[in-house]
Amino acid sequence: MSDQDHSQLRHLSREECLTLLAQALIGRIGYVVDGLAVILPVNFVLFDDDIVFCTAKGGTLAWLTNRTRVAFEVDDSRPADREGWSVLIHGSAREVTDPDQLEVLRRGPLHSWVRTPAEHWVRITVETMSGRALHGSRT
Amino acid sequence: MSDQDHSQLRHLSREECLTLLAQALIGRIGYVVDGLAVILPVNFVLFDDDIVFCTAKGGTLAWLTNRTRVAFEVDDSRPADREGWSVLIHGSAREVTDPDQLEVLRRGPLHSWVRTPAEHWVRITVETMSGRALHGSRT
Repeated sequence: MSDQDHSQLRHLSREECLTLLAQALIGRIGYVVDGLAVILPVNFVLFDDDIVFCTAKGGTLAWLTNRTRVAFEVDDSRPADREGWSVLIHGSAREVTDPDQLEVLRRGPLHSWVRTPAEHWVRITVETMSGRALHGSRT
Repeated sequence: MSDQDHSQLRHLSREECLTLLAQALIGRIGYVVDGLAVILPVNFVLFDDDIVFCTAKGGTLAWLTNRTRVAFEVDDSRPADREGWSVLIHGSAREVTDPDQLEVLRRGPLHSWVRTPAEHWVRITVETMSGRALHGSRT
């Protein structure tokens, strides 16, 4: 599941990536601190083909609201079959402040798993998206 | 699942992190390219409390063998219960060349999911490890 340059690995189209993202619940934010990647899981929804997640004010990810460039990764795997897929996005994170968008988001299925009345919503505007799938390499 | 600064989030001890890692099969390598995080899933094993994964020569991760500083993340979640945990490691990746270690690794459960006769093994020597768990925040 770790090598792209082999015949069993197939690159996914943008449409395939979006279909997989729409079915997923958990992804991982990746950002850079002191030259090292930091990776944190978040629950998310796909919103007009962008990524939206909900975070508590003052929380670890609360600073990711000001056009911060981030990575976002989603994957799934079936170890018994040695199969899996992953999608990697790079984009800009920004707080959602539009009242109409917030209204739609608040009525949706996504809420921070941390109970808090002071939540805010972060949208990652997708700039690049790539995906790959590894099929049936059981030996 | 995205905020650390809240009572439902608990920091995990190193022992708790290692117990969770020992039960996991898939983790994610994080490294930095042009200031952006790149995140790729790999199957791995815990080896003397370090992370070891297997990659094909010439593959995407084949360059991660020369003391490259990387992140490694593992998580699991139960969306229905709004519970989950994650562990984040920073360390140095290096190819395993010691014949005795290679013999032990080749007899173990880990093989690259990509069929290839030309595999090599990469060990991430753990420098820092942190974990957190979110418990029972169902509303």
